Amino acid sequence: MSPRFDFASDNTAGMAPEALEAVTRANAGFASAYGSDETSRRAADLIRETVQADAEIRFVFSGTAGNAIALSMLADPFEAVAAHQAAHVCTDEAGAPGFFGHGVGMLGLPGESGKIDETALLAVLDEPVMGHRQPVGALSLTQSTEYGAVYTSEELRRLIEPAQAKGLRTHLDGARLANAVAAGFDPADIPRLGVDILVMGGAKAGGPCAEALVIFDRALARRIDNRLKQTGQVASKARFLSAPFLGLLESGAWVGHAAHANLMAQRLAEGVMAGTRYVLAHPVEANAVFVRMPARAHQKLNQMGWACHRFDDGSVRFVCSWATTEAAVDELIAAVAACG
Amino acid sequence: MSPRFDFASDNTAGMAPEALEAVTRANAGFASAYGSDETSRRAADLIRETVQADAEIRFVFSGTAGNAIALSMLADPFEAVAAHQAAHVCTDEAGAPGFFGHGVGMLGLPGESGKIDETALLAVLDEPVMGHRQPVGALSLTQSTEYGAVYTSEELRRLIEPAQAKGLRTHLDGARLANAVAAGFDPADIPRLGVDILVMGGAKAGGPCAEALVIFDRALARRIDNRLKQTGQVASKARFLSAPFLGLLESGAWVGHAAHANLMAQRLAEGVMAGTRYVLAHPVEANAVFVRMPARAHQKLNQMGWACHRFDDGSVRFVCSWATTEAAVDELIAAVAACG
Amino acid sequence: MSPRFDFASDNTAGMAPEALEAVTRANAGFASAYGSDETSRRAADLIRETVQADAEIRFVFSGTAGNAIALSMLADPFEAVAAHQAAHVCTDEAGAPGFFGHGVGMLGLPGESGKIDETALLAVLDEPVMGHRQPVGALSLTQSTEYGAVYTSEELRRLIEPAQAKGLRTHLDGARLANAVAAGFDPADIPRLGVDILVMGGAKAGGPCAEALVIFDRALARRIDNRLKQTGQVASKARFLSAPFLGLLESGAWVGHAAHANLMAQRLAEGVMAGTRYVLAHPVEANAVFVRMPARAHQKLNQMGWACHRFDDGSVRFVCSWATTEAAVDELIAAVAACG
Amino acid sequence: MSPRFDFASDNTAGMAPEALEAVTRANAGFASAYGSDETSRRAADLIRETVQADAEIRFVFSGTAGNAIALSMLADPFEAVAAHQAAHVCTDEAGAPGFFGHGVGMLGLPGESGKIDETALLAVLDEPVMGHRQPVGALSLTQSTEYGAVYTSEELRRLIEPAQAKGLRTHLDGARLANAVAAGFDPADIPRLGVDILVMGGAKAGGPCAEALVIFDRALARRIDNRLKQTGQVASKARFLSAPFLGLLESGAWVGHAAHANLMAQRLAEGVMAGTRYVLAHPVEANAVFVRMPARAHQKLNQMGWACHRFDDGSVRFVCSWATTEAAVDELIAAVAACG
Repeated sequence: MSPRFDFASDNTAGMAPEALEAVTRANAGFASAYGSDETSRRAADLIRETVQADAEIRFVFSGTAGNAIALSMLADPFEAVAAHQAAHVCTDEAGAPGFFGHGVGMLGLPGESGKIDETALLAVLDEPVMGHRQPVGALSLTQSTEYGAVYTSEELRRLIEPAQAKGLRTHLDGARLANAVAAGFDPADIPRLGVDILVMGGAKAGGPCAEALVIFDRALARRIDNRLKQTGQVASKARFLSAPFLGLLESGAWVGHAAHANLMAQRLAEGVMAGTRYVLAHPVEANAVFVRMPARAHQKLNQMGWACHRFDDGSVRFVCSWATTEAAVDELIAAVAACG
Repeated sequence: MSPRFDFASDNTAGMAPEALEAVTRANAGFASAYGSDETSRRAADLIRETVQADAEIRFVFSGTAGNAIALSMLADPFEAVAAHQAAHVCTDEAGAPGFFGHGVGMLGLPGESGKIDETALLAVLDEPVMGHRQPVGALSLTQSTEYGAVYTSEELRRLIEPAQAKGLRTHLDGARLANAVAAGFDPADIPRLGVDILVMGGAKAGGPCAEALVIFDRALARRIDNRLKQTGQVASKARFLSAPFLGLLESGAWVGHAAHANLMAQRLAEGVMAGTRYVLAHPVEANAVFVRMPARAHQKLNQMGWACHRFDDGSVRFVCSWATTEAAVDELIAAVAACG
Repeated sequence: MSPRFDFASDNTAGMAPEALEAVTRANAGFASAYGSDETSRRAADLIRETVQADAEIRFVFSGTAGNAIALSMLADPFEAVAAHQAAHVCTDEAGAPGFFGHGVGMLGLPGESGKIDETALLAVLDEPVMGHRQPVGALSLTQSTEYGAVYTSEELRRLIEPAQAKGLRTHLDGARLANAVAAGFDPADIPRLGVDILVMGGAKAGGPCAEALVIFDRALARRIDNRLKQTGQVASKARFLSAPFLGLLESGAWVGHAAHANLMAQRLAEGVMAGTRYVLAHPVEANAVFVRMPARAHQKLNQMGWACHRFDDGSVRFVCSWATTEAAVDELIAAVAACG
Repeated sequence: MSPRFDFASDNTAGMAPEALEAVTRANAGFASAYGSDETSRRAADLIRETVQADAEIRFVFSGTAGNAIALSMLADPFEAVAAHQAAHVCTDEAGAPGFFGHGVGMLGLPGESGKIDETALLAVLDEPVMGHRQPVGALSLTQSTEYGAVYTSEELRRLIEPAQAKGLRTHLDGARLANAVAAGFDPADIPRLGVDILVMGGAKAGGPCAEALVIFDRALARRIDNRLKQTGQVASKARFLSAPFLGLLESGAWVGHAAHANLMAQRLAEGVMAGTRYVLAHPVEANAVFVRMPARAHQKLNQMGWACHRFDDGSVRFVCSWATTEAAVDELIAAVAACG
């Protein structure tokens, strides 16, 4: 049996048809380079419409770069960024925030299902600034979270407000923002709540590798093109970074596919709960399902060809995407049951 | 008249058909992420075949990142990289080498048509190491050069050998390597001459934004995946970075299109010389034509809709690509003549 | 009552007489700058004699800089340094390793009294290298530890050997090495055990701000003067950085004063144990005493004028130095008893 | 004959008596660490008095660090600092600005005797911001200059005003500020003219290695202690960094010694002009004398034991300090004459 990457992540899927079609369309003719092309302009407009704010928009190649650059704009090297201890910026980006931020620290906070615990954040905000430590300088949030949960706007407000009161700026890692929106989160709340920079996910929403840097406070965007050029994140043929957003947003597929992925995750969760003796590690609110299963069962599942990873909380993760089929979900449920 | 970007650069063209077709083909089904997919493996094999060396291959999003990361692997922060003073790494990457290299210096050397002057390099290599300066730590070359010239292998040898004798490593910026190869340069000479890292151009050869990092000395590639992840240059959906190389190389279009671009540049150069009173600033050996024309004529050409830029040497650059047509060349020649 | 800084740290004392006298002596006449002076040469010889190795020696202004520069020589930005979670490099240097190391990560390990737990280190060494993490790239040890303990040579060997077997280099933070030596640790064991770079403490041993970078593997010292100049750690009037070492080492005071400090710590520990109901948090093997006392008592002690700090383990630290007197120790014991 | 370092630089002299005496005085007793001590407070007050401004003051170990940290506070990594091409920050600090500034660029401007040419600066300020370059982000001036000249306040104003009009901040390298003040420059003009950060020289004014960071805009000083700690520039025994300033400033020796040094430079210049056939390369306005002499004569002078260096402008530099004697000046004049 050939290996199955369907559920290993939501980046094992290809481009959704709307993205590929937009790339193909954008390919025609000559176009101005470095982001001044028509495709990039229209995609930026659609993003502004999505978040209902007059934000400065740029497209970058990877979420890792987008997040790290955003954090370098919000915190100084001698400060730390407070984030959930399981956040991608803390654990999965090989130290990119420290590299782009010239030594900026990461302060991992606890909290259920990837949501920062409010009390833990307040404690950090209350710490006095001491010269030999890196005081907290910015807040980083993830929506939906690494463990597949979705913050309510009220939950976000309760984290952002006290941070703002202490002078901190806020970054939102929106690699899976589409899944949160499909689950009912209003993207227009992002600027309303005071987020300063959003990294809006394209890859996991059906694009190729393309994310959008959405800078709500335009003062932060000063000389942003020089910043991005120096960090290797300016696309010469910029239309190919923005076209996927254009295609996904104008068709509604950006949310539509995420809704499908969320639905598949629900189906998977229900199937696992019904058909196996394993329990879920986290509520399934977006497109990921975390199953508590013993190492041996996980190993057996891998041997059966199903690629899937154990996370730091000890559970095994399965992720759905625009490309996940009901048939594949059902096959996986059967496989999980079989390796029990 | 709508603006014409045909000759503004070779990144105003879209993807060549072979690249787009390969991307479309690679889009099918699920694939392992982060570079372990079949498309990336096959593209890497083709690159190794092109340079006839068992190099370590990775794909990155931009030439700026590829070059800066390569230089950070070859020189320490307290050293300088010797390069032509008009090299892209010196003048057009917004200080990326210093950013990725944590302060590494750039030492701009003179030389005709973008080729480093041998005597100037030897003088630099002979300078004693003094504690308060950044001694030269690596050599960076560009093939074809920023001014459209092509080094012979012998010319490269005369630069690389003395550098190696002083312990320096060598980087080759191959953003337009395809054009040099189309002009007769043998890519297998790159490892033979002792280049340590090549950044092989994809974008200007007909790809989207995609370049290949070709590391000949595998010791340099230690933990390269961590390095690239930290610098924001790992593609999750890696197949979309490698597919263009696969499509261009297996079809022969990587060189074929470059040969066409070179031919168009010849046609343009001849037309300008025949039909105007302007002279060429550099020999036309690859796909760029540099014309010495007064500011007023340049301005008039821009007003006629033809985007083109004045360079640091005072001449105006016109670049041809896979997408340049004979008709467009002839139109441009007429326009240049008209603005005289 | 005027505030008492006697026990707040071992950097609240001034220069020991031997150091001040050497500085005064070195002040005479003109001297070659940047480290090529006679004082620096002789001090370096004495350090080589102390560690019985032909090491490359440089003098730096601060332990923070010395440690961070050493780590940047041993680990790449995309790697992490394994250290005790209470090590100065982890908690008290405001992220200097990340700044000097361009994003290098710190991996805090547990262990009693500041000594790294062997099992915890072995577990880290066994982890597979994954592209999205910072794999461990170097080991950092502290002798004596932040909690006043002294590693035996055998304990160090059991940490360094498995690290070396995995290709890791080792840094030793010797801010309080003199106290460890006074407690019986043989400094010649440092190179014997395979430490690559030692930062040898001067300030806490009776110097002004001056530490020595002791590089055992001279290959690591390549272009070290450029490295130090770039990082702002080259003294123009170098004799003033090296003279304290000369004075302290040639007189034997470097160890002699540390022995006195250790003795004072013993006296303090015994007095506290005998005269109060508080317990010690750590064995007193060097010059620091950690007392478990309630917040109210600590506060009262501060109000009485005794500067002292609560540490991350919850205990209150008192540090003795060359300048600590028996009388002051007895006063402090009485004060601790009084605030009980 | 033993080598003579009298004129090799102004850092070959030891501490002036007032500095050494202040260090000795400050050595008594225990003192709060990290800059909160009485000596540091009083020294800071005297500096504020000198510049007649309520500036934030910190003491750092080296001018290289002070300058580079100041520039990192004024320019972003993707910007360049405009400075004279012979400025210490450009040529003699091994790339420290790029290291501390994470890749910040240096833009070397021409100008006579180390003073930035006004027209050259205006041209740079007029350049449009282009995404692929590092636009100028700050201005760096040196008073007195590397070539021994002293800017008038009016000359400084003509550089700073247009820079400010473009939004640039200004740094002043005052390694030899005392010599400029002794030559008639009013230090209170520094804040009046709009300089944002001054690095005030201690070492060359008779201190050991100690410089003062004088931050006029206190907003720039946000979390400065964390910044300095992270960059290895916080002195634990801070009194030893501030005491020299206290001693030199309260006695008037900071300017007094500089006046002596300037006088000695005048004597040397006159002697060379009278007694040899060499000409001076620059007006002698501070404490340095630059003599145009052939390589052979320079070499002979070195062989006679007189350490002195050839500069980038081809002339040989001799520097006077607080410790220079008339006798030594006369000896040097005779030696220069003898090697003619």
